[in-house]
Amino acid sequence: MAESSRIYTAALIVIGDEILSGRTHDKNIAQVASWLGIQGIRMSEVRVVPDVTEAIVEAVNTLRARNDYLFTTGGIGPTHDDITVDAVAEALGVGVVVHPDARAILEGYYETRGGLNEARLRMARVPDGAVLIPNRYTGAPGIRFGNIFLMAGVPQITAGMLDALSGTLEGGHQLLSETVGCWVQESEVADLLRETEKAHASCQIGSYPFWREGKSGANFVIRSVDAEDLAACIRALIRGLEEMDRPSFPGGIEPSGS
Amino acid sequence: MAESSRIYTAALIVIGDEILSGRTHDKNIAQVASWLGIQGIRMSEVRVVPDVTEAIVEAVNTLRARNDYLFTTGGIGPTHDDITVDAVAEALGVGVVVHPDARAILEGYYETRGGLNEARLRMARVPDGAVLIPNRYTGAPGIRFGNIFLMAGVPQITAGMLDALSGTLEGGHQLLSETVGCWVQESEVADLLRETEKAHASCQIGSYPFWREGKSGANFVIRSVDAEDLAACIRALIRGLEEMDRPSFPGGIEPSGS
Repeated sequence: MAESSRIYTAALIVIGDEILSGRTHDKNIAQVASWLGIQGIRMSEVRVVPDVTEAIVEAVNTLRARNDYLFTTGGIGPTHDDITVDAVAEALGVGVVVHPDARAILEGYYETRGGLNEARLRMARVPDGAVLIPNRYTGAPGIRFGNIFLMAGVPQITAGMLDALSGTLEGGHQLLSETVGCWVQESEVADLLRETEKAHASCQIGSYPFWREGKSGANFVIRSVDAEDLAACIRALIRGLEEMDRPSFPGGIEPSGS
Repeated sequence: MAESSRIYTAALIVIGDEILSGRTHDKNIAQVASWLGIQGIRMSEVRVVPDVTEAIVEAVNTLRARNDYLFTTGGIGPTHDDITVDAVAEALGVGVVVHPDARAILEGYYETRGGLNEARLRMARVPDGAVLIPNRYTGAPGIRFGNIFLMAGVPQITAGMLDALSGTLEGGHQLLSETVGCWVQESEVADLLRETEKAHASCQIGSYPFWREGKSGANFVIRSVDAEDLAACIRALIRGLEEMDRPSFPGGIEPSGS
Protein backbone atom coordinates (compact mmCIF):
# COMPACT_ATOMS: atom_id res chain seq x y z
CA MET A 1 0.00 0.00 0.00
CA ALA A 2 1.44 3.38 -0.95
CA GLU A 3 2.34 5.64 1.95
CA SER A 4 -0.20 8.24 0.83
CA SER A 5 -3.07 5.79 1.02
CA ARG A 6 -2.49 4.62 4.55
CA ILE A 7 -5.09 5.57 7.11
CA TYR A 8 -4.07 7.87 9.95
CA THR A 9 -6.00 7.53 13.18
CA ALA A 10 -6.42 9.60 16.31
CA ALA A 11 -8.10 8.97 19.63
CA LEU A 12 -9.59 11.53 21.97
CA ILE A 13 -9.76 11.44 25.76
CA VAL A 14 -12.35 13.81 27.25
CA ILE A 15 -11.29 14.38 30.84
CA GLY A 16 -13.83 15.61 33.32
CA ASP A 17 -16.36 14.72 35.99
CA GLU A 18 -18.64 17.43 34.59
CA ILE A 19 -19.27 15.41 31.43
CA LEU A 20 -19.76 12.13 33.33
CA SER A 21 -22.28 13.75 35.68
CA GLY A 22 -24.39 14.90 32.75
CA ARG A 23 -24.15 18.52 33.91
CA THR A 24 -22.15 19.65 30.91
CA HIS A 25 -22.97 18.51 27.38
CA ASP A 26 -19.77 17.66 25.58
CA LYS A 27 -19.05 19.67 22.47
CA ASN A 28 -15.46 18.64 21.92
CA ILE A 29 -16.06 15.15 20.50
CA ALA A 30 -17.82 16.49 17.41
CA GLN A 31 -15.50 19.48 17.15
CA VAL A 32 -12.29 17.45 17.30
CA ALA A 33 -13.74 14.75 15.01
CA SER A 34 -14.70 17.27 12.32
CA TRP A 35 -11.32 18.97 12.53
CA LEU A 36 -9.48 15.64 12.28
CA GLY A 37 -11.51 14.73 9.19
CA ILE A 38 -10.28 17.85 7.44
CA GLN A 39 -6.68 16.96 8.35
CA GLY A 40 -7.13 13.52 6.72
CA ILE A 41 -7.08 11.79 10.11
CA ARG A 42 -9.80 9.43 11.29
CA MET A 43 -11.10 9.52 14.86
CA SER A 44 -10.93 5.88 15.88
CA GLU A 45 -12.25 6.04 19.43
CA VAL A 46 -13.15 8.37 22.27
CA ARG A 47 -13.06 7.83 26.00
CA VAL A 48 -14.60 10.05 28.63
CA VAL A 49 -12.80 9.56 31.93
CA PRO A 50 -13.18 11.13 35.38
CA ASP A 51 -10.70 13.48 37.07
CA VAL A 52 -8.84 10.47 38.45
CA THR A 53 -5.14 9.93 37.76
CA GLU A 54 -5.32 6.15 37.24
CA ALA A 55 -8.20 6.47 34.76
CA ILE A 56 -6.30 9.05 32.70
CA VAL A 57 -3.05 7.04 32.78
CA GLU A 58 -4.80 3.89 31.59
CA ALA A 59 -6.57 5.66 28.74
CA VAL A 60 -3.43 7.52 27.62
CA ASN A 61 -1.27 4.41 27.54
CA THR A 62 -3.83 2.24 25.77
CA LEU A 63 -4.82 4.79 23.16
CA ARG A 64 -1.41 6.26 22.32
CA ALA A 65 -0.08 2.77 21.58
CA ARG A 66 -2.63 2.11 18.85
CA ASN A 67 -3.17 5.47 17.18
CA ASP A 68 -1.04 7.90 15.23
CA TYR A 69 -2.22 10.77 17.39
CA LEU A 70 -3.81 11.22 20.79
CA PHE A 71 -5.76 14.29 21.90
CA THR A 72 -7.10 15.18 25.31
CA THR A 73 -9.50 17.91 26.33
CA GLY A 74 -9.99 19.25 29.84
CA GLY A 75 -8.12 19.42 33.11
CA ILE A 76 -5.32 21.84 32.20
CA GLY A 77 -6.56 24.83 34.21
CA PRO A 78 -5.34 26.37 37.47
CA THR A 79 -7.47 24.57 40.06
CA HIS A 80 -6.99 21.48 42.21
CA ASP A 81 -9.17 19.34 39.92
CA ASP A 82 -6.89 20.02 36.92
CA ILE A 83 -4.67 16.94 36.94
CA THR A 84 -4.19 16.20 33.24
CA VAL A 85 -0.55 17.34 33.01
CA ASP A 86 0.53 15.26 36.00
CA ALA A 87 -1.42 12.20 34.87
CA VAL A 88 -0.07 12.34 31.31
CA ALA A 89 3.50 12.84 32.59
CA GLU A 90 3.01 9.78 34.79
CA ALA A 91 1.74 7.78 31.82
CA LEU A 92 4.77 8.86 29.78
CA GLY A 93 7.22 8.24 32.61
CA VAL A 94 8.59 11.78 32.55
CA GLY A 95 8.71 14.54 35.13
CA VAL A 96 6.73 17.78 35.19
CA VAL A 97 8.55 21.07 34.68
CA VAL A 98 7.60 24.74 34.35
CA HIS A 99 7.98 25.62 30.66
CA PRO A 100 9.85 28.95 30.43
CA ASP A 101 7.87 30.14 27.39
CA ALA A 102 4.56 29.26 29.04
CA ARG A 103 5.64 31.16 32.14
CA ALA A 104 6.50 34.18 30.00
CA ILE A 105 3.15 34.00 28.19
CA LEU A 106 1.27 33.85 31.49
CA GLU A 107 3.33 36.69 33.00
CA GLY A 108 2.36 38.84 30.03
CA TYR A 109 -1.28 37.80 30.09
CA TYR A 110 -1.73 38.37 33.84
CA GLU A 111 0.35 41.56 33.99
CA THR A 112 -2.82 43.65 33.84
CA ARG A 113 -4.98 40.99 35.49
CA GLY A 114 -3.60 40.79 39.02
CA GLY A 115 -0.23 39.16 38.36
CA LEU A 116 1.01 35.60 38.19
CA ASN A 117 0.06 33.75 41.38
CA GLU A 118 0.81 30.15 42.29
CA ALA A 119 -2.44 28.80 40.83
CA ARG A 120 -1.86 30.56 37.52
CA LEU A 121 1.72 29.29 37.39
CA ARG A 122 0.26 25.75 37.45
CA MET A 123 -0.80 26.41 33.86
CA ALA A 124 2.88 26.70 32.82
CA ARG A 125 3.60 23.14 34.00
CA VAL A 126 4.18 20.60 31.24
CA PRO A 127 5.50 17.05 30.89
CA ASP A 128 9.29 17.42 30.53
CA GLY A 129 10.11 17.70 26.83
CA ALA A 130 6.78 19.16 25.71
CA VAL A 131 6.23 22.12 23.40
CA LEU A 132 3.36 24.60 23.55
CA ILE A 133 0.15 25.00 21.55
CA PRO A 134 -0.91 28.67 21.30
CA ASN A 135 -4.08 29.82 23.06
CA ARG A 136 -5.25 33.05 21.53
CA TYR A 137 -8.03 33.59 24.09
CA THR A 138 -6.75 33.21 27.63
CA GLY A 139 -2.99 32.89 27.51
CA ALA A 140 -2.64 29.47 29.13
CA PRO A 141 -1.25 27.31 26.32
CA GLY A 142 -2.06 23.79 25.23
CA ILE A 143 0.69 21.24 25.31
CA ARG A 144 2.19 18.95 22.68
CA PHE A 145 4.39 16.01 23.61
CA GLY A 146 5.33 14.05 20.49
CA ASN A 147 2.03 12.94 19.01
CA ILE A 148 0.02 13.70 22.15
CA PHE A 149 -1.92 16.96 22.32
CA LEU A 150 -3.34 18.31 25.58
CA MET A 151 -6.05 20.90 24.96
CA ALA A 152 -8.45 22.97 27.01
CA GLY A 153 -11.92 21.75 27.97
CA VAL A 154 -13.79 24.98 27.19
CA PRO A 155 -14.90 24.42 23.58
CA GLN A 156 -14.09 27.94 22.35
CA ILE A 157 -10.51 27.66 23.61
CA THR A 158 -10.19 24.14 22.23
CA ALA A 159 -11.27 25.51 18.84
CA GLY A 160 -8.49 28.10 18.92
CA MET A 161 -5.91 25.43 19.75
CA LEU A 162 -7.14 23.19 16.91
CA ASP A 163 -6.94 26.16 14.60
CA ALA A 164 -3.32 26.70 15.64
CA LEU A 165 -2.57 23.06 14.78
CA SER A 166 -4.36 23.09 11.40
CA GLY A 167 -2.20 21.81 8.58
CA THR A 168 0.68 20.82 10.87
CA LEU A 169 -0.12 17.10 11.24
CA GLU A 170 0.58 14.43 8.67
CA GLY A 171 -2.64 12.83 7.46
CA GLY A 172 -3.78 10.59 4.64
CA HIS A 173 -6.44 11.02 2.02
CA GLN A 174 -9.37 12.93 3.40
CA LEU A 175 -12.37 10.71 4.00
CA LEU A 176 -15.05 12.11 1.69
CA SER A 177 -18.62 12.03 2.81
CA GLU A 178 -21.94 12.72 1.10
CA THR A 179 -25.45 12.46 2.48
CA VAL A 180 -28.64 11.41 0.71
CA GLY A 181 -31.93 11.85 2.56
CA CYS A 182 -35.19 10.05 1.89
CA TRP A 183 -38.67 9.87 3.41
CA VAL A 184 -38.51 6.15 3.94
CA GLN A 185 -38.29 3.72 6.82
CA GLU A 186 -34.75 2.39 6.81
CA SER A 187 -36.16 -1.11 7.25
CA GLU A 188 -37.71 -0.84 3.76
CA VAL A 189 -34.37 -0.22 2.11
CA ALA A 190 -32.01 -2.38 4.19
CA ASP A 191 -31.34 -4.72 1.24
CA LEU A 192 -30.71 -1.84 -1.14
CA LEU A 193 -28.23 -0.28 1.30
CA ARG A 194 -26.34 -3.51 1.89
CA GLU A 195 -26.13 -4.39 -1.80
CA THR A 196 -25.15 -0.90 -2.86
CA GLU A 197 -22.36 -0.86 -0.28
CA LYS A 198 -21.16 -4.29 -1.39
CA ALA A 199 -21.02 -3.15 -5.05
CA HIS A 200 -18.77 -0.19 -4.21
CA ALA A 201 -15.77 -1.61 -2.42
CA SER A 202 -14.30 1.67 -1.16
CA CYS A 203 -17.60 2.93 0.27
CA GLN A 204 -19.30 2.63 3.63
CA ILE A 205 -22.96 3.50 3.97
CA GLY A 206 -24.35 4.55 7.33
CA SER A 207 -28.10 4.75 7.87
CA TYR A 208 -29.47 7.32 10.34
CA PRO A 209 -33.23 7.25 10.85
CA PHE A 210 -35.36 10.05 12.26
CA TRP A 211 -39.00 11.01 12.80
CA ARG A 212 -40.44 14.40 11.93
CA GLU A 213 -44.03 15.56 11.83
CA GLY A 214 -45.17 11.97 12.25
CA LYS A 215 -43.17 10.76 9.23
CA SER A 216 -40.26 8.35 9.08
CA GLY A 217 -37.15 9.39 7.24
CA ALA A 218 -33.51 8.48 7.08
CA ASN A 219 -30.25 10.02 6.02
CA PHE A 220 -27.77 7.75 4.29
CA VAL A 221 -24.19 8.86 4.69
CA ILE A 222 -21.75 7.45 2.15
CA ARG A 223 -18.05 7.67 3.00
CA SER A 224 -15.03 6.88 0.86
CA VAL A 225 -11.53 8.13 0.10
CA ASP A 226 -12.24 7.54 -3.61
CA ALA A 227 -14.24 10.42 -5.13
CA GLU A 228 -15.23 8.49 -8.27
CA ASP A 229 -16.44 5.42 -6.44
CA LEU A 230 -18.28 7.66 -3.99
CA ALA A 231 -20.12 9.41 -6.83
CA ALA A 232 -20.99 6.07 -8.47
CA CYS A 233 -22.27 4.70 -5.17
CA ILE A 234 -24.49 7.75 -4.65
CA ARG A 235 -25.91 7.43 -8.18
CA ALA A 236 -26.66 3.75 -7.60
CA LEU A 237 -28.37 4.50 -4.30
CA ILE A 238 -30.49 7.31 -5.73
CA ARG A 239 -31.48 5.07 -8.70
CA GLY A 240 -32.40 2.26 -6.31
CA LEU A 241 -34.59 4.60 -4.26
CA GLU A 242 -36.24 5.92 -7.45
CA GLU A 243 -37.08 2.37 -8.49
CA MET A 244 -39.00 2.09 -5.22
CA ASP A 245 -40.78 5.39 -5.98
CA ARG A 246 -38.88 7.11 -3.20
CA PRO A 247 -37.51 10.50 -4.22
CA SER A 248 -34.19 11.27 -2.59
CA PHE A 249 -32.72 14.52 -1.33
CA PRO A 250 -29.03 15.04 -2.08
CA GLY A 251 -27.39 16.68 0.92
CA GLY A 252 -29.79 14.96 3.27
CA ILE A 253 -32.89 15.95 5.19
CA GLU A 254 -32.45 17.95 8.37
CA PRO A 255 -34.00 15.88 11.16
CA SER A 256 -35.10 18.97 13.08
CA GLY A 257 -35.29 18.70 16.82
CA SER A 258 -33.88 15.19 17.04
CA MET B 1 -19.30 0.01 54.98
CA ALA B 2 -23.07 -0.46 55.06
CA GLU B 3 -24.62 -1.87 51.90
CA SER B 4 -26.66 1.29 51.39
CA SER B 5 -23.57 3.49 51.29
CA ARG B 6 -21.69 1.63 48.62
CA ILE B 7 -21.22 3.38 45.31
CA TYR B 8 -22.88 1.88 42.25
CA THR B 9 -21.22 2.57 38.91
CA ALA B 10 -22.22 2.26 35.29
CA ALA B 11 -20.33 2.64 32.04
CA LEU B 12 -21.72 3.67 28.68
CA ILE B 13 -20.61 2.59 25.22
CA VAL B 14 -21.76 4.88 22.42
CA ILE B 15 -21.63 2.81 19.24
CA GLY B 16 -21.49 4.55 15.92
CA ASP B 17 -19.32 5.90 13.14
CA GLU B 18 -21.63 8.89 12.90
CA ILE B 19 -20.42 10.21 16.28
CA LEU B 20 -16.75 9.52 15.50
CA SER B 21 -17.02 11.35 12.17
CA GLY B 22 -18.31 14.46 13.89
CA ARG B 23 -21.44 14.44 11.72
CA THR B 24 -23.80 13.72 14.61
CA HIS B 25 -23.45 15.48 17.96
CA ASP B 26 -23.93 12.94 20.72
CA LYS B 27 -26.80 13.63 23.08
CA ASN B 28 -26.89 10.29 24.85
CA ILE B 29 -23.87 10.76 27.12
CA ALA B 30 -25.48 13.62 29.04
CA GLN B 31 -28.92 12.02 28.90
CA VAL B 32 -27.80 8.65 30.27
CA ALA B 33 -25.52 10.32 32.85
CA SER B 34 -28.33 12.50 34.22
CA TRP B 35 -30.72 9.57 34.37
CA LEU B 36 -28.15 7.40 36.15
CA GLY B 37 -27.58 10.14 38.72
CA ILE B 38 -31.27 10.08 39.62
CA GLN B 39 -31.10 6.29 40.03
CA GLY B 40 -28.21 6.68 42.51
CA ILE B 41 -25.70 5.26 40.03
CA ARG B 42 -22.53 7.03 39.01
CA MET B 43 -21.35 7.08 35.40
CA SER B 44 -17.73 6.00 35.69
CA GLU B 45 -16.61 6.10 32.08
CA VAL B 46 -17.81 6.38 28.50
CA ARG B 47 -16.35 5.00 25.32
CA VAL B 48 -17.34 5.94 21.80
CA VAL B 49 -16.47 3.09 19.44
CA PRO B 50 -16.93 2.57 15.69
CA ASP B 51 -19.30 0.08 14.04
CA VAL B 52 -16.60 -2.59 14.27
CA THR B 53 -17.22 -5.89 16.06
CA GLU B 54 -13.79 -6.17 17.72
CA ALA B 55 -14.01 -2.62 19.09
CA ILE B 56 -17.44 -3.30 20.62
CA VAL B 57 -16.37 -6.66 22.06
CA GLU B 58 -13.29 -5.16 23.72
CA ALA B 59 -15.24 -2.30 25.25
CA VAL B 60 -18.06 -4.55 26.49
CA ASN B 61 -15.75 -7.03 28.15
CA THR B 62 -13.53 -4.42 29.80
CA LEU B 63 -16.34 -2.24 31.08
CA ARG B 64 -18.78 -4.89 32.25
CA ALA B 65 -16.07 -6.45 34.42
CA ARG B 66 -15.53 -3.30 36.45
CA ASN B 67 -18.96 -1.71 36.70
CA ASP B 68 -22.28 -2.66 38.24
CA TYR B 69 -24.08 -1.81 35.02
CA LEU B 70 -23.21 -1.36 31.37
CA PHE B 71 -25.28 0.57 28.86
CA THR B 72 -24.88 0.84 25.10
CA THR B 73 -26.56 3.19 22.65
CA GLY B 74 -26.74 2.70 18.90
CA GLY B 75 -26.54 -0.08 16.36
CA ILE B 76 -29.74 -2.00 17.13
CA GLY B 77 -31.70 -1.02 14.00
CA PRO B 78 -32.57 -2.99 10.86
CA THR B 79 -29.67 -2.15 8.53
CA HIS B 80 -26.34 -3.78 7.72
CA ASP B 81 -24.39 -1.36 9.93
CA ASP B 82 -26.39 -2.37 13.03
CA ILE B 83 -24.08 -4.94 14.61
CA THR B 84 -24.49 -4.29 18.34
CA VAL B 85 -26.53 -7.42 19.13
CA ASP B 86 -24.10 -9.74 17.39
CA ALA B 87 -21.05 -8.06 18.89
CA VAL B 88 -22.44 -8.11 22.43
CA ALA B 89 -23.46 -11.77 22.06
CA GLU B 90 -19.93 -12.54 20.93
CA ALA B 91 -18.52 -10.70 23.95
CA LEU B 92 -20.83 -12.68 26.25
CA GLY B 93 -20.12 -15.98 24.53
CA VAL B 94 -23.78 -16.67 23.78
CA GLY B 95 -25.72 -17.19 20.58
CA VAL B 96 -28.21 -14.85 18.91
CA VAL B 97 -31.89 -15.85 18.80
CA VAL B 98 -35.14 -14.26 17.65
CA HIS B 99 -37.02 -13.27 20.80
CA PRO B 100 -40.67 -14.39 20.41
CA ASP B 101 -42.08 -11.36 22.27
CA ALA B 102 -39.98 -8.99 20.18
CA ARG B 103 -41.21 -10.71 17.05
CA ALA B 104 -44.82 -10.32 18.21
CA ILE B 105 -44.28 -6.64 19.03
CA LEU B 106 -42.79 -6.00 15.59
CA GLU B 107 -45.56 -7.95 13.84
CA GLY B 108 -48.11 -5.73 15.55
CA TYR B 109 -46.20 -2.53 14.88
CA TYR B 110 -45.65 -3.23 11.18
CA GLU B 111 -49.10 -4.72 10.56
CA THR B 112 -50.29 -1.37 9.18
CA ARG B 113 -46.83 -0.33 7.99
CA GLY B 114 -46.06 -2.81 5.21
CA GLY B 115 -45.57 -5.97 7.21
CA LEU B 116 -42.59 -7.65 8.86
CA ASN B 117 -39.80 -8.13 6.32
CA GLU B 118 -36.38 -9.69 6.88
CA ALA B 119 -34.70 -6.40 7.77
CA ARG B 120 -37.36 -5.58 10.36
CA LEU B 121 -37.10 -9.04 11.83
CA ARG B 122 -33.42 -8.28 12.55
CA MET B 123 -34.71 -6.03 15.33
CA ALA B 124 -36.18 -9.06 17.14
CA ARG B 125 -32.73 -10.69 17.42
CA VAL B 126 -31.22 -10.74 20.93
CA PRO B 127 -28.35 -12.42 22.76
CA ASP B 128 -29.75 -15.77 23.94
CA GLY B 129 -31.19 -15.28 27.44
CA ALA B 130 -32.01 -11.58 27.10
CA VAL B 131 -35.23 -9.83 28.08
CA LEU B 132 -36.78 -6.80 26.38
CA ILE B 133 -36.86 -3.09 27.22
CA PRO B 134 -40.08 -1.45 25.96
CA ASN B 135 -39.89 1.11 23.16
CA ARG B 136 -43.01 3.23 23.19
CA TYR B 137 -42.13 5.06 19.96
CA THR B 138 -41.18 2.65 17.20
CA GLY B 139 -41.86 -0.87 18.37
CA ALA B 140 -38.33 -2.27 18.14
CA PRO B 141 -37.41 -2.99 21.77
CA GLY B 142 -34.21 -2.42 23.70
CA ILE B 143 -32.50 -5.44 25.18
CA ARG B 144 -31.43 -6.34 28.71
CA PHE B 145 -29.01 -9.16 29.41
CA GLY B 146 -28.24 -9.32 33.12
CA ASN B 147 -26.76 -5.95 33.97
CA ILE B 148 -26.14 -4.99 30.34
CA PHE B 149 -28.64 -2.71 28.60
CA LEU B 150 -28.68 -2.24 24.82
CA MET B 151 -30.57 0.89 23.83
CA ALA B 152 -31.37 2.80 20.67
CA GLY B 153 -29.10 5.50 19.28
CA VAL B 154 -31.84 8.02 18.44
CA PRO B 155 -31.98 10.17 21.61
CA GLN B 156 -35.77 10.36 21.79
CA ILE B 157 -36.11 6.58 21.67
CA THR B 158 -33.26 6.17 24.17
CA ALA B 159 -35.16 8.50 26.50
CA GLY B 160 -38.26 6.30 26.31
CA MET B 161 -36.21 3.20 27.12
CA LEU B 162 -34.55 4.91 30.10
CA ASP B 163 -37.98 5.95 31.28
CA ALA B 164 -39.12 2.32 31.11
CA LEU B 165 -36.13 1.34 33.29
CA SER B 166 -36.61 4.11 35.88
CA GLY B 167 -36.70 2.81 39.42
CA THR B 168 -35.91 -0.78 38.42
CA LEU B 169 -32.13 -0.74 39.07
CA GLU B 170 -30.51 -0.98 42.48
CA GLY B 171 -28.54 2.15 43.24
CA GLY B 172 -26.87 3.78 46.23
CA HIS B 173 -27.31 7.18 47.76
CA GLN B 174 -27.96 9.78 45.13
CA LEU B 175 -24.97 12.01 44.51
CA LEU B 176 -26.21 15.48 45.43
CA SER B 177 -24.93 18.43 43.49
CA GLU B 178 -25.17 22.19 43.95
CA THR B 179 -23.69 24.97 41.89
CA VAL B 180 -22.36 28.35 42.99
CA GLY B 181 -21.48 30.88 40.30
CA CYS B 182 -19.16 33.85 40.64
CA TRP B 183 -17.70 36.56 38.40
CA VAL B 184 -14.13 35.64 39.18
CA GLN B 185 -11.19 34.08 37.41
CA GLU B 186 -10.84 30.59 38.81
CA SER B 187 -7.11 31.18 39.17
CA GLU B 188 -7.87 33.82 41.85
CA VAL B 189 -9.72 31.35 44.02
CA ALA B 190 -7.79 28.12 43.46
CA ASP B 191 -6.53 28.10 47.08
CA LEU B 192 -10.00 28.73 48.46
CA LEU B 193 -11.45 25.88 46.39
CA ARG B 194 -8.76 23.41 47.39
CA GLU B 195 -8.94 24.28 51.09
CA THR B 196 -12.74 24.28 51.18
CA GLU B 197 -12.81 20.85 49.56
CA LYS B 198 -10.20 19.54 52.00
CA ALA B 199 -12.26 20.80 54.99
CA HIS B 200 -15.35 18.89 53.83
CA ALA B 201 -14.33 15.29 53.47
CA SER B 202 -17.43 14.05 51.63
CA CYS B 203 -17.39 16.85 49.05
CA GLN B 204 -15.79 17.28 45.67
CA ILE B 205 -15.58 20.73 44.10
CA GLY B 206 -15.35 21.08 40.34
CA SER B 207 -14.44 24.44 38.81
CA TYR B 208 -15.83 25.33 35.36
CA PRO B 209 -14.68 28.65 33.93
CA PHE B 210 -16.39 30.62 31.18
CA TRP B 211 -16.25 33.97 29.42
CA ARG B 212 -19.25 36.13 28.72
CA GLU B 213 -19.46 39.68 27.47
CA GLY B 214 -15.72 40.05 27.98
CA LYS B 215 -15.87 38.99 31.64
CA SER B 216 -14.39 35.94 33.33
CA GLY B 217 -16.64 33.82 35.48
CA ALA B 218 -16.75 30.33 36.88
CA ASN B 219 -19.29 27.88 38.21
CA PHE B 220 -18.24 25.79 41.17
CA VAL B 221 -20.08 22.48 41.37
CA ILE B 222 -20.05 20.83 44.78
CA ARG B 223 -20.96 17.13 44.90
CA SER B 224 -21.56 14.90 47.89
CA VAL B 225 -23.81 12.08 49.07
CA ASP B 226 -24.05 13.88 52.48
CA ALA B 227 -26.63 16.67 52.39
CA GLU B 228 -25.40 18.33 55.63
CA ASP B 229 -21.75 18.34 54.63
CA LEU B 230 -22.74 19.64 51.19
CA ALA B 231 -24.65 22.55 52.73
CA ALA B 232 -21.75 23.35 55.07
CA CYS B 233 -19.29 23.24 52.18
CA ILE B 234 -21.42 25.64 50.14
CA ARG B 235 -21.70 28.07 53.08
CA ALA B 236 -17.92 27.98 53.56
CA LEU B 237 -17.32 28.61 49.86
CA ILE B 238 -19.78 31.53 49.71
CA ARG B 239 -18.24 33.02 52.86
CA GLY B 240 -14.75 32.67 51.38
CA LEU B 241 -15.84 34.42 48.18
CA GLU B 242 -17.49 37.21 50.22
CA GLU B 243 -14.25 37.76 52.10
CA MET B 244 -12.65 38.42 48.70
CA ASP B 245 -15.46 40.88 47.86
CA ARG B 246 -16.81 38.48 45.26
CA PRO B 247 -20.57 38.07 45.43
CA SER B 248 -21.70 34.58 44.58
CA PHE B 249 -24.77 33.32 42.75
CA PRO B 250 -26.37 30.21 44.23
CA GLY B 251 -27.54 27.95 41.40
CA GLY B 252 -24.71 29.15 39.21
CA ILE B 253 -24.36 31.57 36.32
CA GLU B 254 -25.50 30.44 32.89
CA PRO B 255 -22.44 30.62 30.63
CA SER B 256 -24.56 31.50 27.60
CA GLY B 257 -23.29 30.42 24.24
CA SER B 258 -20.31 28.49 25.51
